Amino acid sequence: MKALLIVAHGSRREASNDEIRDLTRAVAERAGNSFEQVSCAFLELAEPSIPDGLRQLIQAGITNITVVPYFLSAGRHVAEDIPGEVDLVRGEFPNVAIEVAPYLGAAQAVTDLLIQQANTVSA
Amino acid sequence: MKALLIVAHGSRREASNDEIRDLTRAVAERAGNSFEQVSCAFLELAEPSIPDGLRQLIQAGITNITVVPYFLSAGRHVAEDIPGEVDLVRGEFPNVAIEVAPYLGAAQAVTDLLIQQANTVSA
Repeated sequence: MKALLIVAHGSRREASNDEIRDLTRAVAERAGNSFEQVSCAFLELAEPSIPDGLRQLIQAGITNITVVPYFLSAGRHVAEDIPGEVDLVRGEFPNVAIEVAPYLGAAQAVTDLLIQQANTVSA
Repeated sequence: MKALLIVAHGSRREASNDEIRDLTRAVAERAGNSFEQVSCAFLELAEPSIPDGLRQLIQAGITNITVVPYFLSAGRHVAEDIPGEVDLVRGEFPNVAIEVAPYLGAAQAVTDLLIQQANTVSA
């Protein structure tokens, strides 16, 4: 049983957190058979936390989790904070495989997406 | 003469700002004939500022600029701060067309990009 956990920073502005929850539903619809479950978690300021998000998946029977950081740059959050939170849960459930994927901004296709966004308004 | 200006938040961490500059070069290579110039600017903490980035393009002869916010959520920066900075320059150069495109996170294809990132580590 495989799951995808989208990890965002979290915001004081609840509408931004809801944007992540909407995105998570959209990813779940697109994920097809590759992931049985898709959920989200937040580094700070919103719920669930990363450890709680991971534990909820594990309690639902998931044994293989891929964490994708919804971040644009490789700062401290991506390099240290997210792996640190994941390690907490790895220690609790040594039989569950948890991998951290490259952050969103590392995807080469981001370049095409920027051009695509520009073309929506450029005549 | 059309240009694309990628606007990022800016960081105290210079490596993050350099990530944006590298991305800008990659977008320039991909943009082909749709934009004669592609450059970047920062809302804060890094140079050039948004007004300076726009002015540099205009001084180079650009008459049509599309600004793309390199942001993941529709917070105050996207809704108010970036349009406010753009308006400053619109007032200075009424004959230059400056449009603000939807921010990166608003692109539907972000869902596929997240799944793609997950698949780079998921067996």
